[in-house]
Amino acid sequence: MTRGERLGELVRKRELEMLFVSDLINVRYLTGFTGTNGACLVAPELRLFFTDFRYTERAAEKVGAEWERPEAERELLPQIAKRMRGRVGYEDAKLSVRQLKRLREAVGEGVDLVPAGDLVEELRAVKEPEEIERIAAAADLADGVYRWALERGLADKSERDVARACEARIRELGAEPSFPTIVAAGANGALPHAEPGERQIGRGELVVFDMGALLDGYCSDCTRTFATGEPGEEAREVYELVREAQAAALEAVKPGAGGKKVDAVARELIAAAGHGERFGHGTGHGVGLEVHEGPRLAVSSEDELRQGNVVTVEPGVYLPGRFGVRIEDLIVVTADGHRNLSGPPKELQLVS
Amino acid sequence: MTRGERLGELVRKRELEMLFVSDLINVRYLTGFTGTNGACLVAPELRLFFTDFRYTERAAEKVGAEWERPEAERELLPQIAKRMRGRVGYEDAKLSVRQLKRLREAVGEGVDLVPAGDLVEELRAVKEPEEIERIAAAADLADGVYRWALERGLADKSERDVARACEARIRELGAEPSFPTIVAAGANGALPHAEPGERQIGRGELVVFDMGALLDGYCSDCTRTFATGEPGEEAREVYELVREAQAAALEAVKPGAGGKKVDAVARELIAAAGHGERFGHGTGHGVGLEVHEGPRLAVSSEDELRQGNVVTVEPGVYLPGRFGVRIEDLIVVTADGHRNLSGPPKELQLVS
Repeated sequence: MTRGERLGELVRKRELEMLFVSDLINVRYLTGFTGTNGACLVAPELRLFFTDFRYTERAAEKVGAEWERPEAERELLPQIAKRMRGRVGYEDAKLSVRQLKRLREAVGEGVDLVPAGDLVEELRAVKEPEEIERIAAAADLADGVYRWALERGLADKSERDVARACEARIRELGAEPSFPTIVAAGANGALPHAEPGERQIGRGELVVFDMGALLDGYCSDCTRTFATGEPGEEAREVYELVREAQAAALEAVKPGAGGKKVDAVARELIAAAGHGERFGHGTGHGVGLEVHEGPRLAVSSEDELRQGNVVTVEPGVYLPGRFGVRIEDLIVVTADGHRNLSGPPKELQLVS
Repeated sequence: MTRGERLGELVRKRELEMLFVSDLINVRYLTGFTGTNGACLVAPELRLFFTDFRYTERAAEKVGAEWERPEAERELLPQIAKRMRGRVGYEDAKLSVRQLKRLREAVGEGVDLVPAGDLVEELRAVKEPEEIERIAAAADLADGVYRWALERGLADKSERDVARACEARIRELGAEPSFPTIVAAGANGALPHAEPGERQIGRGELVVFDMGALLDGYCSDCTRTFATGEPGEEAREVYELVREAQAAALEAVKPGAGGKKVDAVARELIAAAGHGERFGHGTGHGVGLEVHEGPRLAVSSEDELRQGNVVTVEPGVYLPGRFGVRIEDLIVVTADGHRNLSGPPKELQLVS
């Protein structure tokens, strides 16, 4: 079944007549369209794609034949509204209050607009084999950049220089960074979302290094924590704790496992070692067209893992004013466990 | 007055008790905060800034002293809701339907949530002198990249190679592209939002070249159309028409001029030459923290230009299957006209 057909099935199951898809990433997932103005209207037996004159040629080239492409003005909503019938779901997490108001004003009699949740995101969370290979290719590319960066060395360079050099390298290799590269040394590593700064990376420091590539539309995401020479006993202990928690969480991944449960596996190990308060983020998130998507591995997650999910597993411990450790793999949920897409070794690497 | 104080005044004038600012660019404009999770609550006598633990250190460093910074969880809405009183405006063009629903569920008795339009955007549209200098610096940087690109030559390279080389050059100079660079030769130039492709740039072709830099938080935007050798009589005629329309629109810019009026000045000249149908976009848009913001110069604009607006003036003519011409300057509206921030010459340049 095509993505449009699968979505049509979901629309039917949710007892909607139609779904209005306004989120551009969702539109791209469904149709292949990459411009800045496009939307879809999907029913079990209907696939409409709307864009304006600027993109009609691109749409003719990229949007699959199953999609009818009515002509539309720059302001798409009035034309889309005219095609709506009955109970029409909209993407309430994405549609702005103002857009909904305009839509309500534009639809005809008998159209009932209802919040529909994240139907396309549900489809996106389970990757097709071709999508998995694209994500794997993005991960491979980033793995190569890790090796390249370690060959150049980290110590005596600024965090920012290392991060910018990696981003330039990713681009040289034909991709884009999937998010701003994080290089956070020493105490900066204790800030989970540090911006790489002018601080010089010293010797004997832990360096949290979080990087991903965006290749052919798909993202990768991988974190390693390196040591620029012997970091000392406590740093090693915390590192081993995180490595153990990460390995245990990986082992817990399989179809049917709860995102809450996988998170708890890592969290309980870290808490048992007395660092429960120092692990202030979730254990993982889905990755695909976006670097953060479903499912989530977190205390508050209600997601259940399914074969074909692609998620990160990335516990961390952050000791304010001192150092941080995070180890993150990108994995695919397989029939009986997982396939790891991240290549760099996880034993503590002493690097130059 | 600080930006927070000016916003407090607007809140009072609109007869709101408070404004909830959830758009991250607006939050950044008000407070200087650059993370991915932050929001403000502003009243005439109150400035609250909320972020989660990941960003508390960054916020302490970057957010101005006028802002009180209560502690918040990753999910900010419940804490923010607790501080709301009376008639509270929200950013209806930005807040999603789902966020509004959650907010309604979280607020206490007597809180009335009302759509407030684009109050922060109104402030942002009028630039402070320091902002203008930052935009001018971004424009200067991009001007240098134009010169650099022309020295390297356009013909016999692919559009994509030229565009990617310019983006790499922008990054070497310490900035980022403010949007994906457009290089569109020959018939591709007739697609207003062409993606640079593998097509080799030929000789005697018009090349639409649209580029901007993002430096120190602020964007620039400039388009020139070059000819790789003599493009022929009709191309020259259309070029001169666009140049004349662009110059006339620039002359029409001054405080009090309507965005609709400035657009009409360019549009009528182009229509009088028989190409009215071939100018399918607006004449200009504001530029600042975002590359597209207010005010707009367009048929449907209701904006009136004010001193301190920074806008593009960019008419174009696109002949499908043949070529396109667009000429775009970035200007500041001054007390008696405009100051042009774009340096490249506008006489048709024959380049290699």
